[in-house]
Amino acid sequence: MSETFVIAQGGGPTAVINQTLAGTVIEARRRYPGARVLGARHGVRGIRDGDFVDLSALSDEELKRIAATPSAALGSTRDKPDTAYCETILKGLRQAGATAFVYIGGNDTAGTQQILAEAATGDIAFVHAPKTIDNDLVENDHTPGFISAAEFVAGAFLSIDLDFRALPGIYVGIVMGRHAGFLTAASAAWRQDDESAPHLVYVPERAFSATRFVDDVRAVVSRHGRCVVAMSEGVATEDGRPLVESLVPADRLERDAHGNIQLSGGDLGMAVEQLLKDGLPGTRARVDTFGYLPRGNIATINPTDAREAFEAGVFAVEAAARGGGSVALQYGNGATLPRLVPLAEVAGKTRHMPDDFLMPEANQVSPQCMTYLKRLLPKRFDPAKSFV
Amino acid sequence: MSETFVIAQGGGPTAVINQTLAGTVIEARRRYPGARVLGARHGVRGIRDGDFVDLSALSDEELKRIAATPSAALGSTRDKPDTAYCETILKGLRQAGATAFVYIGGNDTAGTQQILAEAATGDIAFVHAPKTIDNDLVENDHTPGFISAAEFVAGAFLSIDLDFRALPGIYVGIVMGRHAGFLTAASAAWRQDDESAPHLVYVPERAFSATRFVDDVRAVVSRHGRCVVAMSEGVATEDGRPLVESLVPADRLERDAHGNIQLSGGDLGMAVEQLLKDGLPGTRARVDTFGYLPRGNIATINPTDAREAFEAGVFAVEAAARGGGSVALQYGNGATLPRLVPLAEVAGKTRHMPDDFLMPEANQVSPQCMTYLKRLLPKRFDPAKSFV
Repeated sequence: MSETFVIAQGGGPTAVINQTLAGTVIEARRRYPGARVLGARHGVRGIRDGDFVDLSALSDEELKRIAATPSAALGSTRDKPDTAYCETILKGLRQAGATAFVYIGGNDTAGTQQILAEAATGDIAFVHAPKTIDNDLVENDHTPGFISAAEFVAGAFLSIDLDFRALPGIYVGIVMGRHAGFLTAASAAWRQDDESAPHLVYVPERAFSATRFVDDVRAVVSRHGRCVVAMSEGVATEDGRPLVESLVPADRLERDAHGNIQLSGGDLGMAVEQLLKDGLPGTRARVDTFGYLPRGNIATINPTDAREAFEAGVFAVEAAARGGGSVALQYGNGATLPRLVPLAEVAGKTRHMPDDFLMPEANQVSPQCMTYLKRLLPKRFDPAKSFV
Repeated sequence: MSETFVIAQGGGPTAVINQTLAGTVIEARRRYPGARVLGARHGVRGIRDGDFVDLSALSDEELKRIAATPSAALGSTRDKPDTAYCETILKGLRQAGATAFVYIGGNDTAGTQQILAEAATGDIAFVHAPKTIDNDLVENDHTPGFISAAEFVAGAFLSIDLDFRALPGIYVGIVMGRHAGFLTAASAAWRQDDESAPHLVYVPERAFSATRFVDDVRAVVSRHGRCVVAMSEGVATEDGRPLVESLVPADRLERDAHGNIQLSGGDLGMAVEQLLKDGLPGTRARVDTFGYLPRGNIATINPTDAREAFEAGVFAVEAAARGGGSVALQYGNGATLPRLVPLAEVAGKTRHMPDDFLMPEANQVSPQCMTYLKRLLPKRFDPAKSFV
């Protein structure tokens, strides 16, 4: 029987998710000459609706151009299918004659594949290929998409540090990340010296206290004459509720279909600005919401990230041949390689920053975290020291 | 008599302002062997306080490393000296034995030089070297710092466009710019086709109407299924007041020493988000404040911008030899070259976008604007078309 691969992309796009798409298409055609490769538009929604793109006839050149383009070329979706929805998807896959379904995405995407694999009777191989700027997939040393986004954040904080040396004040940069602080921590990767920004790092893994925050900032300002802060949009108070929930009037809070509070960053930013105005009146304070800027930025596509994402796509074809599962980037002996792990190991689970990546007593990343970041993000710039 | 150059940097830093510093130092030493070159820390404040760095002995290698580093290596200031302050500066310059004072900055900086030149008796040459990401200096085709910042904005909107093709919704990116919309308009530079973002461009040069805005966005959404908006933080209503003033409660508004409302972007962003929630309920809408990210970003230093900024610094030495004035980047016969213009021509004046850079009936840049942008920002990326 001839092979038919269905491929889809789920969740927030990244700078390199199309590398994974291209890797799968190229490898599937190499391994199974004459194989059909169908792309579903907007994730599982395209399978449900029979909305496919035939990728079989694209030249390698066209595929490489797609690979080098950020965001999800097939479109994406935030749908988290329930059992009934999964039945429809399964029907759609069978109608398309699928022998394998490769779904590129995060832990929700792995969850969908797990439900599908359980509902199917073994006639289709379900593969999850990793993707997320949040770096929050268990079983992975790091995830495709993270390094490029992290490079944007590291470069931004290096630049902001230089800016605020020249014109001192307080700066808060709010970075995407609901449950995991890796991307926010990446702000520290290219620190030049002990005085460099970010001077404070607030991540969802540590309870946030508004009083402590203002005290922290005041102490840094009195020591360095300026203070640059990196903050995850998902920082939460002691009771586990998002900070934004306790600072913003209830009628302004927006919730998504799953009841999660929308963390666009703007509300949090304004609330933090108010904390600073009240706590340190008269000190220049600025808050920016990085929002979507880091996640698929065409100017900061990291070549290692691109290569690893492509290789994860290639390996997805091997994973299908072995009956399916989740592709995980694992690290050992100085190399990062894709491995096959059971879907159940990854599905729906969130990887948090290890406890020792954060200082026990300070809102700051630890030397262990810096070692990890420096491995993934070798220094790209060598700025001069300023005279101030 | 031996030459003593005093150099300072004023206003918001840029990605290439240190190129201008290095250009002046290197040329001053080449032209006047044995010349002293002093850098004043934090602009005129350093002259007032006698706070100088001796730049005479730095190697060309050290200077080139400084040149390649964004932000103002000498530190900057927002001080706009009055006559009494200028007297103190003049005294400081004479104490330092200055024969020339090169002040790198925007139109306020040119204004300071004009006051000083009028108060002095011709013993010191006062030179203004141009710098601003706002691109709002008259007599200049464009200003050092603009191209790099514009490249950040162009790349960001190209990337956001790809992102919002994959996961449709409304996006508003708020870009720095109080009176001039050039940087916001740069969002259109790398548009791929007629459907590309930004679909709407709001700049300070056109009166903003909240009703019209919501109607505009609704029309784009119904046509393209998504809408990406570029908005200057300085957009103003028909009466000339900043939009943020009419949308944000008075007790939240912050004013600087000059009575200008602080345009950090966050307040405007939240107000715009509310307009969209009210006017297009149920449609996903996100607002990011780019804030400081474009202005001195180490990842997007444009080589042409760097070269032109260096050449402006070199030419500042020639300008001093001619008795002082303002260095202006002028364009003709396919080349951009620095010219000398009187300080009074530039001091305190704001260059706005030419009227024909905007469409008469739409909130959008015109073909004339695109021609200008494409000359300054040749396409750097060639992304593939997405399948959605």
